[in-house]
Amino acid sequence: MTAKAFDIGTAQALLAEVFAPWVQALDLRVQMVEPSGVVLRLPSAPALARVGGILCGQAMMAAADTAMVLAVSAAAGGFRPMTTVQLQTSFMRPIVGRDALVDARVLRLGKTLAFGEITIRGDGEPGPAAHATTTYALL
Amino acid sequence: MTAKAFDIGTAQALLAEVFAPWVQALDLRVQMVEPSGVVLRLPSAPALARVGGILCGQAMMAAADTAMVLAVSAAAGGFRPMTTVQLQTSFMRPIVGRDALVDARVLRLGKTLAFGEITIRGDGEPGPAAHATTTYALL
Amino acid sequence: MTAKAFDIGTAQALLAEVFAPWVQALDLRVQMVEPSGVVLRLPSAPALARVGGILCGQAMMAAADTAMVLAVSAAAGGFRPMTTVQLQTSFMRPIVGRDALVDARVLRLGKTLAFGEITIRGDGEPGPAAHATTTYALL
Amino acid sequence: MTAKAFDIGTAQALLAEVFAPWVQALDLRVQMVEPSGVVLRLPSAPALARVGGILCGQAMMAAADTAMVLAVSAAAGGFRPMTTVQLQTSFMRPIVGRDALVDARVLRLGKTLAFGEITIRGDGEPGPAAHATTTYALL
Repeated sequence: MTAKAFDIGTAQALLAEVFAPWVQALDLRVQMVEPSGVVLRLPSAPALARVGGILCGQAMMAAADTAMVLAVSAAAGGFRPMTTVQLQTSFMRPIVGRDALVDARVLRLGKTLAFGEITIRGDGEPGPAAHATTTYALL
Repeated sequence: MTAKAFDIGTAQALLAEVFAPWVQALDLRVQMVEPSGVVLRLPSAPALARVGGILCGQAMMAAADTAMVLAVSAAAGGFRPMTTVQLQTSFMRPIVGRDALVDARVLRLGKTLAFGEITIRGDGEPGPAAHATTTYALL
Repeated sequence: MTAKAFDIGTAQALLAEVFAPWVQALDLRVQMVEPSGVVLRLPSAPALARVGGILCGQAMMAAADTAMVLAVSAAAGGFRPMTTVQLQTSFMRPIVGRDALVDARVLRLGKTLAFGEITIRGDGEPGPAAHATTTYALL
Repeated sequence: MTAKAFDIGTAQALLAEVFAPWVQALDLRVQMVEPSGVVLRLPSAPALARVGGILCGQAMMAAADTAMVLAVSAAAGGFRPMTTVQLQTSFMRPIVGRDALVDARVLRLGKTLAFGEITIRGDGEPGPAAHATTTYALL
């Protein structure tokens, strides 16, 4: 295949094409693309904070799901239509007043199903704030 | 207890108080409040649709989490500070061009943990579009 | 197809055919078969109890997974080869010195994926002891 | 603290003390204990194989749950009474005719909740066969 590599630019462009405007409002920024995963930055923003200035869990779940679509595309060598089958997120620590880094890794890319895990950390913090696992159906 | 009941008005007001503005942009509307659960309406909106006009999964997860905070408050007789421990969502059918109805039920309200399940349907459709289970820590 | 219905006898026979001997040691007994689900009884047994006489969670997860294979078969009109994609279980209350009733329901039977939920109760107890959701790939 | 370390011997002894006999029948063997996790070996056995000689998923879930109890104990510096709140397992590849290695890591040890993830591989195989995430309540 002579296709261009799935790189940061391709991934960032995909964010603007296939996701809902409400998801695009997260302003996710692709930081890294590798064959087995991606890292996105979720910038700190008042609109995403609940009482106490804590990054809302809804935004973390949305970022996790979005990041994994890009990670599966990276692993597949380009965007593939897919649908989320399930996503399980555990919330371990709050993120307050910091960007979040969303690291999505493909655990297995099968013919019809892809599995992955996502770790979210506050930028500069050692421990994970949230951890998710997910299954996608490849269409 | 002389407290006012936790009713539709209380629940709707809570939506505007404790959730992040980005979550409030979902425009969730409380349809029903019962001792063990709530039903919210997630109005169809172009901002929530991904390619093909399909209601994005990110919005369904966010609505599920938000609905359960209200359901736990209903079961507890009033808002209680709480934090989501985990939320697992399965996506079963697309919702296209319809409002979504988000039915959140408390399965168990313990002293420190609450468990619930959420079923999301396209308005007027028989089968569930998504189903979630969740655990909250009561603070 | 002139196949016999998938009934209690068929389901009980399947338990002895396709599951591992270690799973058969749970001694699960089919109580009810319906088009959308099954109910199994997990008899109380010292071998399944951990310290304090509490039914171990491992047995509840195993019973949930096993019951759903039968429920999907019931919904499909007969046994179909399938594989568990994921299973999420929440543990809400202990079961002590009682049989457990395992109620497995198919939420959606698609062409390649089936979704279900399982509720486990102590026999005679009102509230659920455990609740699980699961996805299967139909082969 | 003058307490004896939580080491392989302590962990192996714990396997024989606090788990149900049916779980002990898995014959799990502690391979490694570290401050943040443990590795157990689940020996290949005909009793654990379903049709086709495939290690049954029920045994993998049971091993994951059991391993995490030991991992949390390792992280806490000794056995602590705890109860599983939820466990989510994804099944990615079959294990056939091989031992399974069960690697349980604590992601966060809080005051009342502990979070972890478990990766199960066929011995000698590069890719994961199953991956689980879990929450425990510390009593």
